[in-house]
Amino acid sequence: MRYGPETPDETYVSHAFDEASFDTGEVTINYAVAGDPDRPALLLVPAQTESWWGFEQAMTLLADDFQVFAVDLRGQGRSTRTPGRYTIDNFGNDLVRFIAGRIARPTIVSGTSSGGVVSAWLSAYAPPGMIRAACYEDPPLFASEIDPAYGPSLRQGLGPMLALLNKYLGDQWSIADWPGLCAAARNELPPFMSGILGIDGDTPPQRLKEYDPEWGRAFATGTVSASCDHERMLSAVKVPVLFTHHFRRIDESTGALQGAISDLQARRVGELVSAAGQRFDYRSFPQAGHLMHALDPALFVTTLREWMATLP
Amino acid sequence: MRYGPETPDETYVSHAFDEASFDTGEVTINYAVAGDPDRPALLLVPAQTESWWGFEQAMTLLADDFQVFAVDLRGQGRSTRTPGRYTIDNFGNDLVRFIAGRIARPTIVSGTSSGGVVSAWLSAYAPPGMIRAACYEDPPLFASEIDPAYGPSLRQGLGPMLALLNKYLGDQWSIADWPGLCAAARNELPPFMSGILGIDGDTPPQRLKEYDPEWGRAFATGTVSASCDHERMLSAVKVPVLFTHHFRRIDESTGALQGAISDLQARRVGELVSAAGQRFDYRSFPQAGHLMHALDPALFVTTLREWMATLP
Repeated sequence: MRYGPETPDETYVSHAFDEASFDTGEVTINYAVAGDPDRPALLLVPAQTESWWGFEQAMTLLADDFQVFAVDLRGQGRSTRTPGRYTIDNFGNDLVRFIAGRIARPTIVSGTSSGGVVSAWLSAYAPPGMIRAACYEDPPLFASEIDPAYGPSLRQGLGPMLALLNKYLGDQWSIADWPGLCAAARNELPPFMSGILGIDGDTPPQRLKEYDPEWGRAFATGTVSASCDHERMLSAVKVPVLFTHHFRRIDESTGALQGAISDLQARRVGELVSAAGQRFDYRSFPQAGHLMHALDPALFVTTLREWMATLP
Repeated sequence: MRYGPETPDETYVSHAFDEASFDTGEVTINYAVAGDPDRPALLLVPAQTESWWGFEQAMTLLADDFQVFAVDLRGQGRSTRTPGRYTIDNFGNDLVRFIAGRIARPTIVSGTSSGGVVSAWLSAYAPPGMIRAACYEDPPLFASEIDPAYGPSLRQGLGPMLALLNKYLGDQWSIADWPGLCAAARNELPPFMSGILGIDGDTPPQRLKEYDPEWGRAFATGTVSASCDHERMLSAVKVPVLFTHHFRRIDESTGALQGAISDLQARRVGELVSAAGQRFDYRSFPQAGHLMHALDPALFVTTLREWMATLP
């Protein structure tokens, strides 16, 4: 089955919030909103292999204090597929247009995993005054690059899994060999890794159906960050940053990273943001899963809300 | 001498129009304006190794009918240098922010050479309603890619010259070996090619001083268009297009392209834009030099003005 926007009946399910769409000129961004427009604006950016509705519970909890927007990036959920054009710069500029055209006021952004890298991009490269503050939720800064300035590269982390996703599912699900992927995952990946995405069972989990596997290739081959070196980006951050750091562990025999970002890499993020003259708050949750906003929404929301209360 | 924004006294000269700057959030865009703000907006984008003032004479001629903005892209003239971040997507999104924040109304864009590729990008990927129409002045569509869908690649055109510029001048003029460049150009390039940029004499011409040679590397290695396939881009054009095609010739013994774009490539551009449902007007000027707007401003302005008069 070739999942994606061209086969919506087979791909998508209904959710607690209505979905809407925004035309950037190149792509249609699918999104949902909770909370009143007179509240401060908060933009939530999902992880790789996640869609906006990963934030559903968090949105409900946040809607008393914020107008919350949760989006699908290009290649996620119901947003447009753009072969050959998955880059951090393009993800980020899509959100610049979304904020300018739809939110239309200064915005706090919180992004998870790859979405956390996009959150970092907005904190560095958005137009003046557009972003008030940024949360990076367990972001693979450096660790999602193929040639990072610091610490393990993507190949030494989740790269092999992303490459396998692309190989057996294909760009835009053009291969869609789910049994082949499951078999290869059992044979070629460390057990902890195939468990992360639920690569077993008869059919793909919902979140994978909504994912363009070309993302996996863009990360595994490095094209996604080829024109966006993370060290340079972090040196240009212009707003206060909250960094939440979840489960991580370095495998002693190989030096491989289990988790999104190593302690050394997270420390370098803080040093670079501080050197850029910006406030940097670091919270460590070594017991928390990668997608804390979905696995423990109360902890995520409390952490975010308490930090936002300290912003000027 | 390390030319560029860090050594302005040694790099820049004065011009007939005042210069101003616009902050995109990531870079400062240097620009000049002519004409009254109640006239239609026209944005001019210079070529590689050119700065905004290449349009000085054309601006004077156009100022009766238009408010004319001429910009330096990142890495050109007085605009910011951005190591590692020279891509068509980034050039284009800088101008999206410039139009939104400075021009602030629907705009006709005309770009030359590499600036013509950026003009094509805006005609395809700008926010809805931002661009009224686009002129591509002798643009190296396909011909500036390292793996084009049609016709000669950059290596079979000006690629060797751009690679040499980067090798002897270095990113941000970090090498600045002008005598070495002149000697290598004599020994390694076909005579017509070194003549194009004036790579001889005791000092670099003014336009080269204002050029970040990292542009040359971004083109010669293909990173500039890595996430922006020209065929895909042209299939997404959303506004009327004027294409002016200047001197070109295919060397029979090598198949190499002398000029910006071959006849076959220009024909494919027209077919793709037409297939996208947009009007495409092609004007051939086989006697005209590459930078017609500077070499024959009257012909450039007449051509542009007559075409714009036919727009709805």
